[in-house]
Amino acid sequence: MLDSDAMNAARNKADAAFDLFRVLDLPFYTFHDRDIAPEGDSLAESLRNFHVMAEYLADKMSTHKTKLLWGTANLFSHPRFMAGAATNPDPEVFAWSATTVKHCMDVTKSLGGENYVLWGGREGYETLLNTNMGQEFEQLGRFLTLVVEYKHKIGFEGQILIEPKPKEPTAHQYDFDVATVYGLLKKFGLESEVAVNIEANHALLAGHSFEHEIATAATLGIFGSLDMNRGDPLLGWDTDQFPNDLQATTMAMYQVIKAGGIGKGGLNFDAKVRRQSFDPEDLIHAHIGGVDLCARAFLLAAQIVEDGRYAQILSERYSGWQTPQAQSMLRGDLTLDQIASATEARGVNPKPRSGKQELLESFLGRMIW
Amino acid sequence: MLDSDAMNAARNKADAAFDLFRVLDLPFYTFHDRDIAPEGDSLAESLRNFHVMAEYLADKMSTHKTKLLWGTANLFSHPRFMAGAATNPDPEVFAWSATTVKHCMDVTKSLGGENYVLWGGREGYETLLNTNMGQEFEQLGRFLTLVVEYKHKIGFEGQILIEPKPKEPTAHQYDFDVATVYGLLKKFGLESEVAVNIEANHALLAGHSFEHEIATAATLGIFGSLDMNRGDPLLGWDTDQFPNDLQATTMAMYQVIKAGGIGKGGLNFDAKVRRQSFDPEDLIHAHIGGVDLCARAFLLAAQIVEDGRYAQILSERYSGWQTPQAQSMLRGDLTLDQIASATEARGVNPKPRSGKQELLESFLGRMIW
Amino acid sequence: MLDSDAMNAARNKADAAFDLFRVLDLPFYTFHDRDIAPEGDSLAESLRNFHVMAEYLADKMSTHKTKLLWGTANLFSHPRFMAGAATNPDPEVFAWSATTVKHCMDVTKSLGGENYVLWGGREGYETLLNTNMGQEFEQLGRFLTLVVEYKHKIGFEGQILIEPKPKEPTAHQYDFDVATVYGLLKKFGLESEVAVNIEANHALLAGHSFEHEIATAATLGIFGSLDMNRGDPLLGWDTDQFPNDLQATTMAMYQVIKAGGIGKGGLNFDAKVRRQSFDPEDLIHAHIGGVDLCARAFLLAAQIVEDGRYAQILSERYSGWQTPQAQSMLRGDLTLDQIASATEARGVNPKPRSGKQELLESFLGRMIW
Amino acid sequence: MLDSDAMNAARNKADAAFDLFRVLDLPFYTFHDRDIAPEGDSLAESLRNFHVMAEYLADKMSTHKTKLLWGTANLFSHPRFMAGAATNPDPEVFAWSATTVKHCMDVTKSLGGENYVLWGGREGYETLLNTNMGQEFEQLGRFLTLVVEYKHKIGFEGQILIEPKPKEPTAHQYDFDVATVYGLLKKFGLESEVAVNIEANHALLAGHSFEHEIATAATLGIFGSLDMNRGDPLLGWDTDQFPNDLQATTMAMYQVIKAGGIGKGGLNFDAKVRRQSFDPEDLIHAHIGGVDLCARAFLLAAQIVEDGRYAQILSERYSGWQTPQAQSMLRGDLTLDQIASATEARGVNPKPRSGKQELLESFLGRMIW
Repeated sequence: MLDSDAMNAARNKADAAFDLFRVLDLPFYTFHDRDIAPEGDSLAESLRNFHVMAEYLADKMSTHKTKLLWGTANLFSHPRFMAGAATNPDPEVFAWSATTVKHCMDVTKSLGGENYVLWGGREGYETLLNTNMGQEFEQLGRFLTLVVEYKHKIGFEGQILIEPKPKEPTAHQYDFDVATVYGLLKKFGLESEVAVNIEANHALLAGHSFEHEIATAATLGIFGSLDMNRGDPLLGWDTDQFPNDLQATTMAMYQVIKAGGIGKGGLNFDAKVRRQSFDPEDLIHAHIGGVDLCARAFLLAAQIVEDGRYAQILSERYSGWQTPQAQSMLRGDLTLDQIASATEARGVNPKPRSGKQELLESFLGRMIW
Repeated sequence: MLDSDAMNAARNKADAAFDLFRVLDLPFYTFHDRDIAPEGDSLAESLRNFHVMAEYLADKMSTHKTKLLWGTANLFSHPRFMAGAATNPDPEVFAWSATTVKHCMDVTKSLGGENYVLWGGREGYETLLNTNMGQEFEQLGRFLTLVVEYKHKIGFEGQILIEPKPKEPTAHQYDFDVATVYGLLKKFGLESEVAVNIEANHALLAGHSFEHEIATAATLGIFGSLDMNRGDPLLGWDTDQFPNDLQATTMAMYQVIKAGGIGKGGLNFDAKVRRQSFDPEDLIHAHIGGVDLCARAFLLAAQIVEDGRYAQILSERYSGWQTPQAQSMLRGDLTLDQIASATEARGVNPKPRSGKQELLESFLGRMIW
Repeated sequence: MLDSDAMNAARNKADAAFDLFRVLDLPFYTFHDRDIAPEGDSLAESLRNFHVMAEYLADKMSTHKTKLLWGTANLFSHPRFMAGAATNPDPEVFAWSATTVKHCMDVTKSLGGENYVLWGGREGYETLLNTNMGQEFEQLGRFLTLVVEYKHKIGFEGQILIEPKPKEPTAHQYDFDVATVYGLLKKFGLESEVAVNIEANHALLAGHSFEHEIATAATLGIFGSLDMNRGDPLLGWDTDQFPNDLQATTMAMYQVIKAGGIGKGGLNFDAKVRRQSFDPEDLIHAHIGGVDLCARAFLLAAQIVEDGRYAQILSERYSGWQTPQAQSMLRGDLTLDQIASATEARGVNPKPRSGKQELLESFLGRMIW
Repeated sequence: MLDSDAMNAARNKADAAFDLFRVLDLPFYTFHDRDIAPEGDSLAESLRNFHVMAEYLADKMSTHKTKLLWGTANLFSHPRFMAGAATNPDPEVFAWSATTVKHCMDVTKSLGGENYVLWGGREGYETLLNTNMGQEFEQLGRFLTLVVEYKHKIGFEGQILIEPKPKEPTAHQYDFDVATVYGLLKKFGLESEVAVNIEANHALLAGHSFEHEIATAATLGIFGSLDMNRGDPLLGWDTDQFPNDLQATTMAMYQVIKAGGIGKGGLNFDAKVRRQSFDPEDLIHAHIGGVDLCARAFLLAAQIVEDGRYAQILSERYSGWQTPQAQSMLRGDLTLDQIASATEARGVNPKPRSGKQELLESFLGRMIW
């Protein structure tokens, strides 16, 4: 090991991290390769550093109760990834990235990780003028397929997750939002193999609410896990703040419960304290505040579910679809012209019914205060 | 016909429209049912009005050279559609909408339309609190399938198109952008049956450039037609203005040419003059300005293609992928661990190459002026 | 009165409004001239309708306890205002608008209004290509001055308020936000004569939080009143919804209390129920929900003030400025070069202190739940 | 000098910069203190480094024809400024900043600078929860006043400029946009002493077009200079790219000419090449492209002015204000009630006239191509 200082720093960081996990009583942690081990002078050395530190983490885990929610690979910080990892115009970067992911998957499996996450921080473009989108999609599809096949080969039982993000620092990322990721997965035939790790902050950057992204993922059958970092609706960049909006988080948790829970997924923060919050205690306050807010939001969401009022209003609203005729139309027993003939014969005149939005919103407020 | 005034007004409007087409020498026009015929007091009367006016248009077309680019149905203006057409909680609205589309497709076919467009102006939600997204997706899938099956049944040879739009007046539309529509089509197995009619304005509302949406559609194999209405990047609503940005339109046309042209599709404006532009001549100036700008942009784009510089830079940028080893990796001949072994053995150290964005942008400027 | 139906409808509307005020036990109401009386065929008839209805309102008020918070003039709905009221290129529109405001001020005074509001819904531009901004500023300044002088002439003791709004339907409004209005008032020498009626929704459209606008107005000495209509941070238009965000509203109320309260101002909703909320009871639910949320937010804000923690942290953070030297520097007793000499002599080395943002945010969450 | 390496690097950078100025034939350059000299271990050492390098620049300038457009101070990069410079809660940071600005002004004067710029990169807040806005405004006013007084004391004949910016990295900056800066200047009585250096990019972040900000500054009498860095309307952060939009830049130049030209101001780029553009030649291409685009835009704007069509349409549009009666109303010869009486007596009925927006936009397109 040439750079023993860097490795000592990595060990100190791991020690401090597990102290923090213990103090905060956190059940899970997450990492990427550059979080836990320094970049080396070559691919070989970087991988060596990573495996040394992976063993160090295994030791820490043997004496702590915090488990691994997921591992991932940092394929975005080093300049080699500036034009992408899987979608780089240079196949050597693709190969480097594939190699790194292979090792990160191995380590995630050996540490008992529940999931493996693909972070696509550079899979996109700065300008279409220098981009071959078709070629890059083909590369992305191949990369995802390699990862899924390798998961089965090594018998990793966790989920493979993609974390959608629309942009920054790129002008456009290919995993823009949940719906876009679903389309890509369908294109590559991977929709039953890969799910999404949805970040509140990235939902916002894509123009969606967090709850929208969760509901969409649940509807499309690819809901995987949650990254609780929030953004600021008045700022256009990735602020990655600790969650502080109880109402929005409650709505997110409500969708989680409606989706049948979070399965092998979990909640992670890779939030950052604000630049001016540099006291060590700021980090503690931020985590406590974030965790407590999520817990409170979950309890409120559970209360809303138990109350049952929303479910009942929803069920009444769509009750017309329960008739045999409507079901038959929905199942596809009738053609367009058959529906037309029947409808013209019946002389329907549908009456709108109130959507009761203000009532539903007021009820939410009352549950919270 | 109870309301003969309304029908007379519709005939006058059709006369004026064909005068305008003639004066402007426009090769194509488009319509929805409420553009050409007034809503009646019942479904039957609305359909009657529509067929009467369709015959009137057929007469006009027999003496004019302007052809029909596409027809569509207005399933959004009347209050019955306020909670959606295909995705309405009330199956009667679904049936009404299906019936209307059936007739609009019949008329589009009989008038020789090149395409049939599905406008989803209310297919989305205002709040998730009163929305069953899974149920609504199922309805949407059934509706699209009915349309595609009916197209084949009647032997309509045009394309079926969806016009993506992210929001307004809804808080979220299910056909948010091109990538989202692709995912829905794949979900319903319709990706080779339906293409997209991309609007500049809607691209912007979804956080994308017009050229991005065209390139994405071309890459995913669903590029259909173009709606040239522009928005304003500083305003957050659907301004539907006539195009006036030569550079952005040139970049859009460049992607059209790269996509192999527009096929059965075309360019349409359903742009509106600004509220203060109420003189009849404003309408003429707006159309002339818009058509000329598109023509000029197309010529510039053709010149860029013929110049070949962009294509060459692009081809050099991705040339690494032309080697047999890279091709083999891309095709899937190697597994993740095989790539890793080979890469570790080779000891690669990829060197980034400049993306030359500023040079490429300067070149564009020079082509334009 | 030619159009007795329209006047009857106006009387029915007034009856229903006062029933609603009574049922909801609302202490104040607000109106513009077109809310209460129909447009006539001429200026004279419009004014006549308005005064007839003003008397009708006076009668209603004599038997109800709801008072008038403010009146205003609708100088935006009719096409004559499409290019502005005070800032119209046509001086006849300026004159029409001045006349209308004169009568609205008279009526507001006679009904005991606490304030008079200037709504600038068309005072801006669609494109700079047809706009003489200097001329329009001069018109705006004259109009405001006329209003202020007339207020004193008739002895109206209420506040004159401007409601800032950045855009929609214009591309730009001259009363963009609180800071912009302050600059205009200073330019015309009216900063001690006119205050602002701040709307949550308009704050958002201008890129600010509601609490920011309140704090800015309080700092600049022009805080007047509050319009509680909310927008949606994910939508770019003026949704004018009933407030439903307890946390944001609490922060707004906290700034109100810090500003020393709302004085002659008040809280108004001119929010609209969503299009799908067309049942009469939706209107009731919306108002109850909105009023209760504001009340709850105010109580929470009061609790935060009484707790005193925020105030103490703030006072400590700026405590360095309490030393005689710092005060002297702030007062202007030293020149730039004197400060430089003293600072160089002292050899300062300032140490940043944590801004504690996450702690402060967590505390807020705990106060709410 | 302890750190001779850093000083050597600074000299090499200055040599390379003047080579670049020569190659590109640039008439002006700009700098901040940290651009030209390294931060030292103390205030004294930082100032010493700065003065040594200022002499070095003086030498370079004696053999080159590139002059100094403006100097400024970097009061944002070092952590001591994280909570502001002039608006810091710690008066020691205020004193440090004042001292630094004093020296930067001295050097700017001695190098013959045409202007001195105040960059407020940290004068704002992250959260209102830890901010005393009133106190910070007072500090800001004092700081600006000190600078203006010192300018007169040393006989600096250049303009003092503020560069408005709404946010990033702060959540809000006090110099949000041109209109906001005007209000602050009026508040502190400095509106005839300080002008604005308007950046295209910052205009966009504030929700304005570049041309809007120029027109506003000209109307308010505070137009100073231009920073040509562009942003990306689809991205929400400060991309600081080289200009590439001919149409938008032409419109900006048109406002410059209408404002009577740029006076002592000039055009500066502190744009950055994209991260992937790391070849030395990218820097050259970027500057050539940017300078040529500005030149071309200026020539087009001049052509539009000479053509005179816009000016004539504008003059006709406002011609009603040229009558003696309208002028008298505008001057303030009549009170509100006098205008009302006269207007009611005349029975006006204003007729809207078309704003001709599409015609005006088409004409612009034709001038460009």
